[in-house]
Amino acid sequence: MPDGPRDAFRSPRFSQPPTFMRLPYRPDVSGANVAILGVPFDGGTTNRPGTRLGPREIRVQSSLIRPYNYFQKVAPFEELAVVDAGDVDASPINLARAYAAIEVRVSEIVAAGARPLVAGGDHGISLPILRALARRHGPLGLVQFDAHVDTWEGDFGDQHFHGSAFYYAIEEGLVDPRRFVQVGIRGPMYGEADFDFHRAKGITVLDIGQVHAAGVAGVVEVVRRVASGPAYVTFDIDAVDPAFAPGTGTPEPGGLTSHQSLELVRGLAGLDIVGADVVEVSPPFDGPGQITAVLASNLLFELLSAMARGSVR
Amino acid sequence: MPDGPRDAFRSPRFSQPPTFMRLPYRPDVSGANVAILGVPFDGGTTNRPGTRLGPREIRVQSSLIRPYNYFQKVAPFEELAVVDAGDVDASPINLARAYAAIEVRVSEIVAAGARPLVAGGDHGISLPILRALARRHGPLGLVQFDAHVDTWEGDFGDQHFHGSAFYYAIEEGLVDPRRFVQVGIRGPMYGEADFDFHRAKGITVLDIGQVHAAGVAGVVEVVRRVASGPAYVTFDIDAVDPAFAPGTGTPEPGGLTSHQSLELVRGLAGLDIVGADVVEVSPPFDGPGQITAVLASNLLFELLSAMARGSVR
Amino acid sequence: MPDGPRDAFRSPRFSQPPTFMRLPYRPDVSGANVAILGVPFDGGTTNRPGTRLGPREIRVQSSLIRPYNYFQKVAPFEELAVVDAGDVDASPINLARAYAAIEVRVSEIVAAGARPLVAGGDHGISLPILRALARRHGPLGLVQFDAHVDTWEGDFGDQHFHGSAFYYAIEEGLVDPRRFVQVGIRGPMYGEADFDFHRAKGITVLDIGQVHAAGVAGVVEVVRRVASGPAYVTFDIDAVDPAFAPGTGTPEPGGLTSHQSLELVRGLAGLDIVGADVVEVSPPFDGPGQITAVLASNLLFELLSAMARGSVR
Amino acid sequence: MPDGPRDAFRSPRFSQPPTFMRLPYRPDVSGANVAILGVPFDGGTTNRPGTRLGPREIRVQSSLIRPYNYFQKVAPFEELAVVDAGDVDASPINLARAYAAIEVRVSEIVAAGARPLVAGGDHGISLPILRALARRHGPLGLVQFDAHVDTWEGDFGDQHFHGSAFYYAIEEGLVDPRRFVQVGIRGPMYGEADFDFHRAKGITVLDIGQVHAAGVAGVVEVVRRVASGPAYVTFDIDAVDPAFAPGTGTPEPGGLTSHQSLELVRGLAGLDIVGADVVEVSPPFDGPGQITAVLASNLLFELLSAMARGSVR
Amino acid sequence: MPDGPRDAFRSPRFSQPPTFMRLPYRPDVSGANVAILGVPFDGGTTNRPGTRLGPREIRVQSSLIRPYNYFQKVAPFEELAVVDAGDVDASPINLARAYAAIEVRVSEIVAAGARPLVAGGDHGISLPILRALARRHGPLGLVQFDAHVDTWEGDFGDQHFHGSAFYYAIEEGLVDPRRFVQVGIRGPMYGEADFDFHRAKGITVLDIGQVHAAGVAGVVEVVRRVASGPAYVTFDIDAVDPAFAPGTGTPEPGGLTSHQSLELVRGLAGLDIVGADVVEVSPPFDGPGQITAVLASNLLFELLSAMARGSVR
Amino acid sequence: MPDGPRDAFRSPRFSQPPTFMRLPYRPDVSGANVAILGVPFDGGTTNRPGTRLGPREIRVQSSLIRPYNYFQKVAPFEELAVVDAGDVDASPINLARAYAAIEVRVSEIVAAGARPLVAGGDHGISLPILRALARRHGPLGLVQFDAHVDTWEGDFGDQHFHGSAFYYAIEEGLVDPRRFVQVGIRGPMYGEADFDFHRAKGITVLDIGQVHAAGVAGVVEVVRRVASGPAYVTFDIDAVDPAFAPGTGTPEPGGLTSHQSLELVRGLAGLDIVGADVVEVSPPFDGPGQITAVLASNLLFELLSAMARGSVR
Repeated sequence: MPDGPRDAFRSPRFSQPPTFMRLPYRPDVSGANVAILGVPFDGGTTNRPGTRLGPREIRVQSSLIRPYNYFQKVAPFEELAVVDAGDVDASPINLARAYAAIEVRVSEIVAAGARPLVAGGDHGISLPILRALARRHGPLGLVQFDAHVDTWEGDFGDQHFHGSAFYYAIEEGLVDPRRFVQVGIRGPMYGEADFDFHRAKGITVLDIGQVHAAGVAGVVEVVRRVASGPAYVTFDIDAVDPAFAPGTGTPEPGGLTSHQSLELVRGLAGLDIVGADVVEVSPPFDGPGQITAVLASNLLFELLSAMARGSVR
Repeated sequence: MPDGPRDAFRSPRFSQPPTFMRLPYRPDVSGANVAILGVPFDGGTTNRPGTRLGPREIRVQSSLIRPYNYFQKVAPFEELAVVDAGDVDASPINLARAYAAIEVRVSEIVAAGARPLVAGGDHGISLPILRALARRHGPLGLVQFDAHVDTWEGDFGDQHFHGSAFYYAIEEGLVDPRRFVQVGIRGPMYGEADFDFHRAKGITVLDIGQVHAAGVAGVVEVVRRVASGPAYVTFDIDAVDPAFAPGTGTPEPGGLTSHQSLELVRGLAGLDIVGADVVEVSPPFDGPGQITAVLASNLLFELLSAMARGSVR
Repeated sequence: MPDGPRDAFRSPRFSQPPTFMRLPYRPDVSGANVAILGVPFDGGTTNRPGTRLGPREIRVQSSLIRPYNYFQKVAPFEELAVVDAGDVDASPINLARAYAAIEVRVSEIVAAGARPLVAGGDHGISLPILRALARRHGPLGLVQFDAHVDTWEGDFGDQHFHGSAFYYAIEEGLVDPRRFVQVGIRGPMYGEADFDFHRAKGITVLDIGQVHAAGVAGVVEVVRRVASGPAYVTFDIDAVDPAFAPGTGTPEPGGLTSHQSLELVRGLAGLDIVGADVVEVSPPFDGPGQITAVLASNLLFELLSAMARGSVR
Repeated sequence: MPDGPRDAFRSPRFSQPPTFMRLPYRPDVSGANVAILGVPFDGGTTNRPGTRLGPREIRVQSSLIRPYNYFQKVAPFEELAVVDAGDVDASPINLARAYAAIEVRVSEIVAAGARPLVAGGDHGISLPILRALARRHGPLGLVQFDAHVDTWEGDFGDQHFHGSAFYYAIEEGLVDPRRFVQVGIRGPMYGEADFDFHRAKGITVLDIGQVHAAGVAGVVEVVRRVASGPAYVTFDIDAVDPAFAPGTGTPEPGGLTSHQSLELVRGLAGLDIVGADVVEVSPPFDGPGQITAVLASNLLFELLSAMARGSVR
Repeated sequence: MPDGPRDAFRSPRFSQPPTFMRLPYRPDVSGANVAILGVPFDGGTTNRPGTRLGPREIRVQSSLIRPYNYFQKVAPFEELAVVDAGDVDASPINLARAYAAIEVRVSEIVAAGARPLVAGGDHGISLPILRALARRHGPLGLVQFDAHVDTWEGDFGDQHFHGSAFYYAIEEGLVDPRRFVQVGIRGPMYGEADFDFHRAKGITVLDIGQVHAAGVAGVVEVVRRVASGPAYVTFDIDAVDPAFAPGTGTPEPGGLTSHQSLELVRGLAGLDIVGADVVEVSPPFDGPGQITAVLASNLLFELLSAMARGSVR
Repeated sequence: MPDGPRDAFRSPRFSQPPTFMRLPYRPDVSGANVAILGVPFDGGTTNRPGTRLGPREIRVQSSLIRPYNYFQKVAPFEELAVVDAGDVDASPINLARAYAAIEVRVSEIVAAGARPLVAGGDHGISLPILRALARRHGPLGLVQFDAHVDTWEGDFGDQHFHGSAFYYAIEEGLVDPRRFVQVGIRGPMYGEADFDFHRAKGITVLDIGQVHAAGVAGVVEVVRRVASGPAYVTFDIDAVDPAFAPGTGTPEPGGLTSHQSLELVRGLAGLDIVGADVVEVSPPFDGPGQITAVLASNLLFELLSAMARGSVR
């Protein structure tokens, strides 16, 4: 079993090459239950770029993570063997090559018996991850925290970009739309037709108004009911309000607070989480405190803890 | 009728000289129902400057606005002919000349049959706008979202600065104090005498404590009752908490959240809004994510949508 | 009695060398009831440094403080003689020397009959302040707003650092653990054993979940019940969420809002506050708006106002 | 003939939607001699991204340009009809589509009789520009200011990226290597083999050491001798030292000063410049002063002035 | 005689309310030979604002100044009694009132027998300073380091702004144009007519090309020859290249280096300097290192040292 | 022999946990000729802190280093086995413990037969490094690039801080003062007595004026003559002008350019360099381009290349 995080009482948090949560860097994930994987790719981004720098900054800020989850009452590194699996060396200039490399790498992790916990990168990367996971698990449940639906068919004449991952995930049969719930949707839109696909496929949407009305407990209840069976969790950081997550490319005011975000993820424990990601962290648009990467680190830790609590696989 | 916003699926959001909401730049506003106007003037500012750069940054960040308002259920560019009317070329060094130029330009817009939707600039600019509008509509109702009362008589020996607009708006008969409501007032003050003018004139104040106690629905009810008849809406971005709007000159902690702000503006639909502004956005004091200008863009879009829903004029 | 704050209608807020709340700089505190003291020391910091620059930036941003507290209904500078007592010239390179200097300076202030209101600096500085105060008042009640417990025994082989102040405060008998309450605790931890000391000593903890559940009024009730008698208040700015206070060294998402923070401090009025501090403000990690120092300034003003209302000493 | 720049004594520099040098925005370039064109594309970038935001920031900062070039003794807007031709709406997610769009747009400009003066964007965009120009003019001379040779054959398995433009420009016969000179080359390299292509083709290189040794006059002499006949000028901002141009993706210390850069471009007057670009300005990596975009604006103005002096076409 | 700077071996450089060069804050300048005065006024600024925050930041960064000038071989605080005279409380919203206040305050300083050494503020403030000084000394020699001539007659319909100080200084007879030299002029201009006034009045101009050609020694020789007799020195920080001084409002690439700037000021020793200023430092446009204010602090120290060496008055 | 740097044509520069120059992370340095070591300690800093974050940022920015040194004509990773040896886990709160840990770790490296190439950290760390090296090599020659002499005896009552390393290096016999040369000294000082120690011991000083007068070649000649025999090279980044290296704690204008810095280090080839460091890089005070860490990375590469050329040991 791999070592746990480096001891912060002896090695300062800012010391040594940064790895996710100060875990050992182990590109060979054999023996690991969870592989934290960086996907530094932003080639599908249509507004402000920079999420290619997300994994690096999340590694840096995740040095603040300590080993025990007080609110979930679990010590995930004791329950699970967790490693920093490194990054996918995705081409920054060719989306198709990048998606192929991501799918290959996640397939390796799955084959080794580990669950991928991914730090992006733009939201398009969820598609090749889902391709690798669905090959193993069949059509998956999906919990998507996001300001945007990301179910467009394409942009600028291309199919794949950071707003189309879940259209193709459904069209390719990777995700079961009846077990797919979106949480936090908001912002100016193109029209009511933005939801035609949802209605046709039976996707559940909880827009931000519904989230505020239902409260965390109400949302969690819906999410747990919908996303039964093997499920993937994708957390687009722009689900959170720009005050709490300014470092992102397509900010939408009026989003989740950090407290709501953490509580919502804590509510996922018990789901059969076969993989998860936190995406769209763009450090150049954050301030010097890098609070977006700090929050992303905590969301990854909560996802990991939820995996640890429900690790019945 | 002018064209609507440029299509973001064909022209990237960061492409072309930025205009408000990617609308056509039309200094000649004939045929328009709403003219979005920049007033890049900060010569009345007594603390941190920089709101002269507000309209430019709001144009940049408003590129994220899409054409449909999902929460208000209205497509404002289909209901209203909307243009970017450009900026008032106000002297940066002479407040009196600047106010005169603003009044002239807003009068032109009013004469052309369009309603002004203004991006500031410091809060003093509301006075010349109100002068132009009151000449047409008579004494107006007024909804002011703000941390500060802005009813001082002057500063440093002068009458006009960014904290005196509404004192003079009432003294000059531009605003009917009985139809004037202030929302979000807070922060350290000079004394209870700060509200003597309010009491004498019958201005309604909802301080931030009352806002939190009443909730959005409660505030909206008061606002709609008070600001009946033709009304102006002025939104000082410092009504919002500095976490959500750091880019401003006189920040006061403990303010509105972005979600509350958006919901409050949505609640204005049905008022007879003859003009509106969003002021005090100072980009040099925001971070690289420019979340203050992003929020201001969304508030302008909500104001526009409220105009579209109530466009019975 | 010392003069109050400089008049902002005649001297701009950005003018003159900055002092706390634009008060006179009076290293000789005789005649003062409250001495606002800077402690620019960050030598006990184990993650991001920079709180040595906290007092300077808090002075700058506190220029926005006006003389009347509208929510507490008190004009503190009329009730109390308040001065900027300057900074402790603490060695930046030797923690022991620095702590000694802090204790000496606070003892001088206490001897002069003034209460210290301190701007830090890292959280370790509370220990020498408590040493000076307990010598005068005996074991104190303690109200700690914080994300972290700060009751570790040491780090890197040393006893004293910014996470051990309250362990030693209790071990040295400076604080009565039965009158000690911590508010806002959260974040990943080392294990449940982090609270063994609390259980053994009888320290009251309100973690962030309990704070949200109880609401401000519920928390205030507990705090006032626990911290009876002469009490010290220590406010670690990381009790607040990073969105509202990004400029700090060990940020933990999911914290207090600025509104909650201000309300909680307002709720302290009536306690017998013999001294207080606001610590862990690190300006290099804040953005250009410096909203963390703005908030810290307001918290200091609320603490001062609470002292003024309860100034029965 | 189009109007010249807006009058800065009547319209503030920060007023109105920003266009290049405050020129009229005229996507229809008929009648223009020079079309300043933005190409906001960074999809070929292999390190820090962000040059897609270059044209927008260069427009903003070019508001400081005044109409007379004192050092070149020419008023370019009097000699030439110059317009802001807008941006190429290049797909941000597909390099091949983007290059095609760039080539089409530049061809339109050439067909209209105007010379393109381009603000990038990453350095890959020079290739489609050269394709459009060479179709009209035949193989061109080329003056490249750059830290890097940009003559690699490809990266990550693809041919085209921001380091291969000039390899393909020569292989496709767009540039005559005997009339091609590179100025400012430096930085760690892959090996002496980096220059095999240069030797084989007869490209002239003046590395930074040679530039410092020869001085501006010496370099200008070489450049003018080599780049005879119709020539293109490409200025990668990383030719300049990072102190003067921090806002770029692949910074190399030890480069040109701003003064040298301006003087070198001034020395191009007399060349038959059929088009030119300034590329690799990445605003997110600049500071709040945006000095990189300021410098790029001045380089564009010097290029324009050089065109005006030599406008014998 | 006032005390010298606070001892940095006992009081950290970041400790205590910042004053210029850590000198005592003495609004009453009696007994002082030199009064360092802040003028935080930017109401005459026509591009990016923010110099109102210049004196405050210069005070902060001047904490690095030590007492001995190694290159000028003088200990200025031993030769001269120097104080921080505080700031002029100039109205931020009314240029005429501000100029009047500046003139009054400088007159007080002059009357007290002290020479003013001023930190701005925008360049317009030199005019009221010269009014106060010329009343005492008669028409003055003038050494102006600047990118811009600042001899325009007005802007936006007003006479006075930050580009007209020296036009009126001559028209009002405050400066003898034959003893007036400008150093570092550059940037795009309006036309050759920009220098008509210079030719008519006999002002000497050394543009940046001439500066580079003559070298520091050559420039110094000219300056010393022209500015004989009682002279004022005004240093606009934009004389320096934006790489060395990004924090300014109207940056012009291709300027002086910091080394040249310091050497040029050192060369002024021997002139009869009756007053001096360093202006146009705008901290919001500098980076976190605030190198512009650091340089300004050193220029003030060199000016002070030059005064000390030539203090024959 | 360890592997060389990761291939940047296959793994993006921003991918994978950052190590120095993309080298393998090998805490066990056996078999290495050069060990690049981070020392993230800033506990001896008396002005702006933050160099504890230097090694991490230098790792990030050193991803731009390519394997061949074109100007020195050497491929250092082919000549030498080079590894990233990780960081010294130095206590951030106790200088004495930290120095001990540094000395132990460097001794390990020396014992393993490798030369240490160190990234700091504040300048005090050179002392324990020299202790370890002198134990092996005897009194060393020393080349110090710096704005400051760093030969003070102590500060705030302590001996060791970042300004006293070389006083104790000589007093402890670690450095032979006759073979010690300082390059780049400048800035305001305390008095001529600052050089008494130099005169008494025979240390050679080339102040910045002498550097500019002698030129790079002249300085190199002196340095090579003085620092004969086994020598250590210490490069304080503040030797460089703040324009080129803003991210440091004690900036002094008027320093070296980046080009001069690189050339000076290139001139060291042939010296018997037994170890070297680049110190005082403080990322929080740099801008988003992090040009200081970029320059530091290049200086480390030039030092490594000089070692490779002279690797006769």
